[in-house]
Amino acid sequence: MTANSIKIERTTAPKQKPDENQLGFGKYFTDHMFIMDYEEGKGWINPRIIPYQPIMMDPAAKVFHYGQTVFEGLKAYRAADGRILLFRPEQNFLRLNRSNSRLSIPDVDGELALEALKQLILVDQDWVPSQEGNSLYIRPFVIATQATLGVAPSHNYHFMIIMSPVGAYYAEGIHPVKIYVESEYVRAVRGGTGNAKTAGNYAGGLKAQEEATSKGYSQVLWLDGVHQKYIEEVGSMNVFFKIGGTVYTPELNGSILDGITRNSMIQLLKHWNVPVVERQISIDEIYEAYTNGTLEEAFGTGTAAVISPIGDLYWNGHQMLINGGHTGELSQKLYDTLTSIQQGAQEDPFSWMVEVQQKAILS
Amino acid sequence: MTANSIKIERTTAPKQKPDENQLGFGKYFTDHMFIMDYEEGKGWINPRIIPYQPIMMDPAAKVFHYGQTVFEGLKAYRAADGRILLFRPEQNFLRLNRSNSRLSIPDVDGELALEALKQLILVDQDWVPSQEGNSLYIRPFVIATQATLGVAPSHNYHFMIIMSPVGAYYAEGIHPVKIYVESEYVRAVRGGTGNAKTAGNYAGGLKAQEEATSKGYSQVLWLDGVHQKYIEEVGSMNVFFKIGGTVYTPELNGSILDGITRNSMIQLLKHWNVPVVERQISIDEIYEAYTNGTLEEAFGTGTAAVISPIGDLYWNGHQMLINGGHTGELSQKLYDTLTSIQQGAQEDPFSWMVEVQQKAILS
Ligand SMILES: Cc1ncc(COP(=O)(O)O)c(C=O)c1O
Ligand SMILES: Cc1ncc(COP(=O)(O)O)c(C=O)c1O
Repeated sequence: MTANSIKIERTTAPKQKPDENQLGFGKYFTDHMFIMDYEEGKGWINPRIIPYQPIMMDPAAKVFHYGQTVFEGLKAYRAADGRILLFRPEQNFLRLNRSNSRLSIPDVDGELALEALKQLILVDQDWVPSQEGNSLYIRPFVIATQATLGVAPSHNYHFMIIMSPVGAYYAEGIHPVKIYVESEYVRAVRGGTGNAKTAGNYAGGLKAQEEATSKGYSQVLWLDGVHQKYIEEVGSMNVFFKIGGTVYTPELNGSILDGITRNSMIQLLKHWNVPVVERQISIDEIYEAYTNGTLEEAFGTGTAAVISPIGDLYWNGHQMLINGGHTGELSQKLYDTLTSIQQGAQEDPFSWMVEVQQKAILS
Repeated sequence: MTANSIKIERTTAPKQKPDENQLGFGKYFTDHMFIMDYEEGKGWINPRIIPYQPIMMDPAAKVFHYGQTVFEGLKAYRAADGRILLFRPEQNFLRLNRSNSRLSIPDVDGELALEALKQLILVDQDWVPSQEGNSLYIRPFVIATQATLGVAPSHNYHFMIIMSPVGAYYAEGIHPVKIYVESEYVRAVRGGTGNAKTAGNYAGGLKAQEEATSKGYSQVLWLDGVHQKYIEEVGSMNVFFKIGGTVYTPELNGSILDGITRNSMIQLLKHWNVPVVERQISIDEIYEAYTNGTLEEAFGTGTAAVISPIGDLYWNGHQMLINGGHTGELSQKLYDTLTSIQQGAQEDPFSWMVEVQQKAILS
């Protein structure tokens, strides 16, 4: 299958575009979507770009019952000069296939997927927002469609890409949030699916998130499933702590997601000669650093918000105010640097950005 | 909403019924299904029985991305005298709501759901198999349908019931299977979703199941997520061990499913004055009982197979042959008793069976 085998059917009824000041997150979808099918014995077939539309699903489709599904999330940015830039998209398709492997889903050809994404973006290029801070959120995903109820890997799948113009996560720039350290619910455990981007990980977290919200916190900080002591992630983000001049982040232990923003932050920090350490970090250690005054900054990292500073951390009766509740200097610098690389406004020392180039679209 | 508000639209194109000797499991579906919708602010609305058909799903529906879904599984049996009997159906709807609560899904009215199920069965009564060992497998489930990508509980859901005529799990009566004790992958951990019947638990288990199958085992035995030492479940069944005359089964610890077959087996054993103990059981203990000759029987319990005897247990280099690889006496007696109660062939001392009575169907 080659990229030029992607069929394109354009909509005859383009939607009205939403107000760029009111985008929110994941509420509006572009005019088109990409879809291809998997059939046991045939592999991935029939790649096509079609008008965004509901799909017909048999009620017995395995995704509904056994959750065999994976997804990705990345963004396209509009540079000041009008170019459309993707941030490390090949990493998302590599991770998609690592998730696929954990979920017993057949591999997707990463090159084809990237080409499909580029073509889809070109078809919907008017949907890439231009206002600063706005971007086009991209959601590739695979769902198991075989309509039989046995607990076994599906013989049929859809791979799809849908896209949503989104606003800046924080309308007035980044600002610190209050985080609740979760000591009851567990997101993932080694041997489980924590390092795969799969639906069940998020379903299990809804309850904790709801309870944290009702207590006035914006997200939970997850502890490990074995000891309920070691730090894993914050909400749907990886997490970093600056303690006594060194930046610490939990190592990739099998139960946290290998975040692309996390990886990029580590590269930036090393580039700046800021000491950065990936290792197991206990919540007691964080509390100790807080009490002895060496806990300088804390922040989450992820595609949606890029950086989300932690201003307040509640753990087991202890309220830790971090950096006086203000965004730390390093957090701000990381945010400013990465977002300006992403928007094509500053040099890209790691060649992260991939331009979606205007060219003749085949078919 | 009352039961007689359930609208019924009958199919004009009934399907051909499959050969009762070739049913398998979950491959064929009856002519109709039940569906109702949830809308934030309105609650559950529009309960209806309609021809079995694909549903239209927005590609952004939360179930695809964040796995917000729960399900149930139960069976209807055809008694020799033609009556249609359900096995403890109210228990399934109680458990559905416990699962709902864990997944931040609104409660379903259990009485309405049971009435809907009865009406659906009456509409499709010709689909209830009559051959011995066959039954009608019933799958109630809830899926989150809101089409926005934020990780948050959905504002919209479908509750559906689909039904599939199924064959006896073991065509020639029960027979012992080979089980692989899983020491790498983990199904669930306390604080997670193990005691909810939700998709993600099954997705995470596919890989282990695949690897066990490739090694020649039919299912895995899951160990706990914290110590990888205590016995949890076997495949998608609860598990029992008879050691020195006493029957042991893991206690309901939050990470195993509260199986209705498990509960019924415990009641039967108590009724027979067979000592039965629910407690934490380590795999070392099982191995010790095996080596000192007191491990008499082992079996899984669940709706699909009722009883699945374990003939062989592989753990960490040790191969344990249980009861010479034959079905144990107690396993057989439990199987015979429960299946004959379910088929209405013997007294039902606990009033478990609920008859689906022919009556005028409203609307
Ligand atoms: C659970 C979880 N952790 C971390 C991240 C951050 O990953 P990335 O930086 O690739 O967006 C995500 C996704 O955004 C996530 O879903
Ligand atoms: C994970 C799991 N454990 C145990 C069981 C057994 O439960 P029940 O006896 O209610 O069918 C099931 C469902 O069949 C299950 O999915």
